[in-house]
Amino acid sequence: MPEYRAVREKFGFLELCHHPQAAAEVTVTAAERLGVDAAIIFADILLVLEPLGLGLQFSAGDGPVLERPINGPEDVERLGAYDVDDALGFVYEAIRLTRAALAGRVPLIGFSGAPFTLASYLIEGGGSRQYLRTKAFMYQHPAAWEALLALLARVINAYLRGQIAAGADAVQLFDSWVGCLSPDDYRHRVLPHSRAALAGLSGLAPVIHFGTGTSGLLSLMREAGGDVIGVDWRIALDDAWTAIGRDRAIQGNLDPVTLFASPDEIRKQAAAILARAARRPGHIFNLGHGILPQTPVDHVRALVDAVHEMSAA
Amino acid sequence: MPEYRAVREKFGFLELCHHPQAAAEVTVTAAERLGVDAAIIFADILLVLEPLGLGLQFSAGDGPVLERPINGPEDVERLGAYDVDDALGFVYEAIRLTRAALAGRVPLIGFSGAPFTLASYLIEGGGSRQYLRTKAFMYQHPAAWEALLALLARVINAYLRGQIAAGADAVQLFDSWVGCLSPDDYRHRVLPHSRAALAGLSGLAPVIHFGTGTSGLLSLMREAGGDVIGVDWRIALDDAWTAIGRDRAIQGNLDPVTLFASPDEIRKQAAAILARAARRPGHIFNLGHGILPQTPVDHVRALVDAVHEMSAA
Repeated sequence: MPEYRAVREKFGFLELCHHPQAAAEVTVTAAERLGVDAAIIFADILLVLEPLGLGLQFSAGDGPVLERPINGPEDVERLGAYDVDDALGFVYEAIRLTRAALAGRVPLIGFSGAPFTLASYLIEGGGSRQYLRTKAFMYQHPAAWEALLALLARVINAYLRGQIAAGADAVQLFDSWVGCLSPDDYRHRVLPHSRAALAGLSGLAPVIHFGTGTSGLLSLMREAGGDVIGVDWRIALDDAWTAIGRDRAIQGNLDPVTLFASPDEIRKQAAAILARAARRPGHIFNLGHGILPQTPVDHVRALVDAVHEMSAA
Repeated sequence: MPEYRAVREKFGFLELCHHPQAAAEVTVTAAERLGVDAAIIFADILLVLEPLGLGLQFSAGDGPVLERPINGPEDVERLGAYDVDDALGFVYEAIRLTRAALAGRVPLIGFSGAPFTLASYLIEGGGSRQYLRTKAFMYQHPAAWEALLALLARVINAYLRGQIAAGADAVQLFDSWVGCLSPDDYRHRVLPHSRAALAGLSGLAPVIHFGTGTSGLLSLMREAGGDVIGVDWRIALDDAWTAIGRDRAIQGNLDPVTLFASPDEIRKQAAAILARAARRPGHIFNLGHGILPQTPVDHVRALVDAVHEMSAA
């Protein structure tokens, strides 16, 4: 969106996250321009990593980079706990300002990265394709792996509690890259930490638990927690819901690349998802992953309008 | 393997593929050193693209690159059919030499890339993370997409027939990147072409149909064809087999990164897969994707020995 690009000329990405007033404006402008039914705070899944002091940076084009990634168990031992509310209070302030500006027109969703996905950035030093370093660390240093994910789970839990206390109407846990794991590795080495990250939150606000490439992990993600399970486009929505169980809500699952197709094709694909949801309550229509930078804004608006129209019919 | 690195000092990757005697030696040496139950020809899934004349190259480290990728429908129209047996006869010759050298000790598997995966390289110009250009092409130019995949399916079918005629005991279709698609897109835009690529082959030799990230596509891949469906590690083997149907064989599904763990851990993970296969006939133990370059050779040997020992017990 041009409005966002204008703001970004004044602020770097992390700088904008740290500026509650500007972050609130970005959220409110996007929600109003797109006509969506919920707003999401302007933040990043990696913000909880910044106070660890490993040199988190966002380079233009290349995404997040950690200057001093974790190489071995000794690096995990050196990681210090920190006061979450103090270090991340700027996000809570953004939530308060955003909520005030939204004035109850749409709910506001807070979020954080999940233990596995955050650990993968800490160990890879950035994004990855095969997660070779992350998995090798997990296999070769099981005690340090447990300590790292336990630390992250504590921080995430406190952070999401703080977001809810500041006014987030719901929170989403992004385990964006957990789909690189086998179900057995997820069950034994990740699930307990995702559960700890989510512990007690559902009693405070609805929790959305999201990942990509998770077609074979959905029932385990449900075990880990979440009132709503988010799924990407790699599985038919009704098959996903069967795997998760119909006593949970589901969010998804349009391929974000579909937004590069014609409005006609977008509408067809949205209709197919709604048909698979069979208009049951408990389906939240959404993309199956984040929107891509070059996506035409008018195609997003066309999707929102099409979903509203078809859902009301 | 040091033996392979020595050969590669004399030949570039594509050059080695084009040299039947050297390619045969690589296959035979690897099969003997590792003690596996089948050998696979030394070749690449992209070899059928080379005669199209778009400048296929393998750069060290970066993988395959197409110098002149497909940008629009006019580039598809310009693609010429070619005489497969003539252009790719060097692979058939490698198969004949390899088979003679193996002298029946283990069967020999031939292979090719599948229409979708090959099209993705043609359109992206190399590997990709999100397949944005490929999917955008698929949505924006449906007729050119159909023409491209139909051309590739014809070439692949002739190529695999030629491999079987030259002595391949089985053939494998690698749809390595098809897991980026939704089930609906796969069904309507890819499945018919994968089916055409495999048409009539099962009557000649067993066919293995493989992909990664396909946990939500398995029943559709079975529809497209294959006596054996290959699955990666992202789904429990028994769940995958249920989705595919027990009247098909299954190949998989150890995460290749597991080979960076200790031999003890490797054995445990192999045992878990064998337990999920429940020692039914029709399970071919394999990695869930290609072996990674830095994998310790003695760990591979340890895996092979462990699987043999546990399967015989």
